[in-house]
Amino acid sequence: MTYCVGIRLKSGTILASDSRTSAGVDYISVFSKTHRFSVAGEREIFLLTAGNLATTQEVISILKREIQENSEGNILQLKSLFDVANKVGNTVIKVLDRLPTQKYNHVDFGCSFLIGGQIKGESQRLFRVYSEGNFIEVSKETPFFQIGESKYGKPMLDRIISYDTNIEDALKCVLVSFDSTMRSNLSVGLPINLYYLPVALNNENGSEDIKEVKSAYIDENHTEFKEISQHWTSGLQKLFGDIPNQKWWD
Amino acid sequence: MTYCVGIRLKSGTILASDSRTSAGVDYISVFSKTHRFSVAGEREIFLLTAGNLATTQEVISILKREIQENSEGNILQLKSLFDVANKVGNTVIKVLDRLPTQKYNHVDFGCSFLIGGQIKGESQRLFRVYSEGNFIEVSKETPFFQIGESKYGKPMLDRIISYDTNIEDALKCVLVSFDSTMRSNLSVGLPINLYYLPVALNNENGSEDIKEVKSAYIDENHTEFKEISQHWTSGLQKLFGDIPNQKWWD
Repeated sequence: MTYCVGIRLKSGTILASDSRTSAGVDYISVFSKTHRFSVAGEREIFLLTAGNLATTQEVISILKREIQENSEGNILQLKSLFDVANKVGNTVIKVLDRLPTQKYNHVDFGCSFLIGGQIKGESQRLFRVYSEGNFIEVSKETPFFQIGESKYGKPMLDRIISYDTNIEDALKCVLVSFDSTMRSNLSVGLPINLYYLPVALNNENGSEDIKEVKSAYIDENHTEFKEISQHWTSGLQKLFGDIPNQKWWD
Repeated sequence: MTYCVGIRLKSGTILASDSRTSAGVDYISVFSKTHRFSVAGEREIFLLTAGNLATTQEVISILKREIQENSEGNILQLKSLFDVANKVGNTVIKVLDRLPTQKYNHVDFGCSFLIGGQIKGESQRLFRVYSEGNFIEVSKETPFFQIGESKYGKPMLDRIISYDTNIEDALKCVLVSFDSTMRSNLSVGLPINLYYLPVALNNENGSEDIKEVKSAYIDENHTEFKEISQHWTSGLQKLFGDIPNQKWWD
């Protein structure tokens, strides 16, 4: 399984993915699920993938080949992240069209994508693309998407994350969300790829510049993640202890 | 959807279920999902249900009719909770055999049950029965089962619950688990039916007496649940605030 989170905050975009992939219990491996398409100062596009690894790899390979061959309308040429979401959706449709999905209808060929980032000329945006090729965009009311094994980590995000949450709290929340997911599901595992794209207002013309992306690679030796994980676990135990016992019955 | 939890602690058994059932978005109703079969001092059997409401109601109806007709081997006659789990499993198989599940293979006719309690002569036990009619029992290493919409509420249980957890902490944890689930999934809702069956050792012969069951009905006006919910929410916010900010990148 996989766990990926994308959050579009007022102050920027956070994208995080785990790296464990399983194709059967005896074949668990590490694959990065975050793919970055970047042209300094001009565009930062992140594709995070979940679902069938063969499908998502084929989609990513096609998108990369189009760039290599400088095909018209490749991801590095598109003017808007909306167009990127559209292209990814169309590529998913094309890939699944090629496969004998009807014949092997007990196999889940499906996949989903988070597409986040910024293309010069527009603000940062964040989309979620479905297996069917359609997609949705975050809003201020719903500023985050999760794909993959999303339920274990959702309660923390529901409680903490809003459009106005500051970056420090949001990062802590994302990592607590990963910690909770990894404790409840062994098929989600370290390392975590974490990216942050800060919003930068260019005061001269009010448009948003594309700032340098911050990134972290969080493995089992990552001191700060271990500290958060331990602090959270012991804090939860204490919080439980501090809840007054209730009189549930006579 | 549904959310049910059963925990077999050293000090007793906790069983809790929500009461919201949806059959399509325009038909959301309240059904109790906990069914109690009780003979004072002799047996306390709880059946908690999740899954297809038609299937689970038919299973429960058959079990109740067997009792009314005093059929041989009905739930009130069986000597062990293992036999009860077996009977429930067989009844599920019989009900699903009757239905055209092959014809309507896009419909999920499946269901699952938690079966907890005690029959005089043995200790308290807790089983989980699957749609296929087979079942598993809790152990000291894995003292709880969840059925229905279980993932949102699992991280809290994973962190807190062990066989030796005291009853007060376990009850708080169960209710926090429900609170988290209801926040993340609107199809799980109040009221909650909560039961606790304390373990009682009869010192004369070392066997375990069956003590009086404690119960609570938790709706939106339940002061203690509201207090836990508010305490937990504000405590989590504070706990986040208290986690030291980390240096994720330069």
